[in-house]
Amino acid sequence: MNGIKRVLIAGGTHGNELIGVNLIKKFERSPDLVCRPSFETEVLLANPRSVTAGTRYIDKDLNRCFSIKDTELTTELAYEAHRAKALRDEFGQAGQTPVDFIIDLHSTTSNAKLMLILDNLDALTLNLAAHLSSIQPNVKIYHSGSSGRKQDALRSLAQYRLGIEVGPVAHGTLDATLFRQTEELVYQTLDYLEQYNRNKTTARKSSLILYQYVGTVDYPRDARGELLGMIHPQLQFNDYEALNPGDPMFITVDGAAMVYQEESTVYPVFINEAAYYEKGIAMYLTRKQQIETYQDATA
Amino acid sequence: MNGIKRVLIAGGTHGNELIGVNLIKKFERSPDLVCRPSFETEVLLANPRSVTAGTRYIDKDLNRCFSIKDTELTTELAYEAHRAKALRDEFGQAGQTPVDFIIDLHSTTSNAKLMLILDNLDALTLNLAAHLSSIQPNVKIYHSGSSGRKQDALRSLAQYRLGIEVGPVAHGTLDATLFRQTEELVYQTLDYLEQYNRNKTTARKSSLILYQYVGTVDYPRDARGELLGMIHPQLQFNDYEALNPGDPMFITVDGAAMVYQEESTVYPVFINEAAYYEKGIAMYLTRKQQIETYQDATA
Repeated sequence: MNGIKRVLIAGGTHGNELIGVNLIKKFERSPDLVCRPSFETEVLLANPRSVTAGTRYIDKDLNRCFSIKDTELTTELAYEAHRAKALRDEFGQAGQTPVDFIIDLHSTTSNAKLMLILDNLDALTLNLAAHLSSIQPNVKIYHSGSSGRKQDALRSLAQYRLGIEVGPVAHGTLDATLFRQTEELVYQTLDYLEQYNRNKTTARKSSLILYQYVGTVDYPRDARGELLGMIHPQLQFNDYEALNPGDPMFITVDGAAMVYQEESTVYPVFINEAAYYEKGIAMYLTRKQQIETYQDATA
Repeated sequence: MNGIKRVLIAGGTHGNELIGVNLIKKFERSPDLVCRPSFETEVLLANPRSVTAGTRYIDKDLNRCFSIKDTELTTELAYEAHRAKALRDEFGQAGQTPVDFIIDLHSTTSNAKLMLILDNLDALTLNLAAHLSSIQPNVKIYHSGSSGRKQDALRSLAQYRLGIEVGPVAHGTLDATLFRQTEELVYQTLDYLEQYNRNKTTARKSSLILYQYVGTVDYPRDARGELLGMIHPQLQFNDYEALNPGDPMFITVDGAAMVYQEESTVYPVFINEAAYYEKGIAMYLTRKQQIETYQDATA
């Protein structure tokens, strides 16, 4: 088995997601909190200029910049494109001080609860997710699948990654309960990796519910792109719940309900996330899957 | 009596408060909705550049710019300072087309419910507030008092004003329920002004609860201004409720509760409003007052 040698905890990839920003600042003040005997831990405020500005980004979304090739940077002026390259040169697999595991801290205006974002379904990742969901009842597990984050997100720099996405919380604000729960997830992840390195994780059959990315849906808009509808009140904050054919999905600004018209039941997440309006995304659609994890990460 | 001749409905004074922005766009598409026989109605997207950018403002908060003197504008570069002058030249008392009544639409991350912001406690304003609170149970009445908004807010351009502040809703998002309730408050206000102009409002003794501005409180911070605390979970979303000496107010990032230490009970509002972090405001404190309104606005 290959142990985990270096872990990176990132926050402020989006500068207005204050839970991650302020947890990183706390860890910078008190590095012992994230120190574990069997690996090194680095903490990173990923987009410091956007943190200072109090915005998601300066020029473009940093968490979509990690697939930009070096050859494209000669004509690319965006701050975040160059920031992504600097982070890859430092922490990436071919960088100066590569990391094996990245925990990236995010928050959302949607009712994500404590979402673990998995890009890969290897044994370590699945067993970690099973462990976290066994000790935090509010944990939900989302598999990013073909959404693109596997390639272009900050966490794509490492072989093993965990995105932590908590909500609902308005961008630019802190929520003390979600702050504490995020902090506990970080410590529990580090503790798990410590046990993993020491071959002390125990093999156990467990059953996991996975919300698997299928695609996205935009708001109703006119020909110029102006919003003509909003999330229906029955769907608002209803992340992870079944959306069946005929269920209300949007309500127009004139008060008319619009229903979900596809044939199969889906489970929306990231419903009404503020940062996704400009991306043309009202919600992500997922399929709910139950999977059995027999593997022991240390087997 | 002087009738109301021209009413201005403004939204997008803060470009990321999407309920006001999208209501104004709806009224622009369907002006009949806000047309009433006895007065003219204008609708205004107040800060169009910030609406396009999806931010509260471009250079500075427009809703603090209306006390800037013309003589100061020679050295003042901020877009919003010049936008405020242009709006004053158009709609102000000495402007080209003055308005008598301004309704300004806002939203907040705090649990404002349906807040009516009153700057002045004249008979028309109080009777309107009493009328609206009698038909919308979620209405709360806040008196801005010495907070400064009487002089520097957009609505200060008119003799009569009503700020409508709804929440909780994350900036950059729409909430369909609050959108509809805000829209109804606008129609009910216009209908009331129509009755007022026709001398058809009825005299009635009514008792109003008023939340009177007292001051503001900042978050716990270190010497460099970095946040060291958050709103305590027991206070979060608890706007308009009594905060008594000894009640928890903040929780530090290390988990220690900080209690309210003054001697008198207060009623916080705007708790955890995103835009107020940079202003050094964690909440506004108010005193709760019951007042009797005997006046008939048409007497």
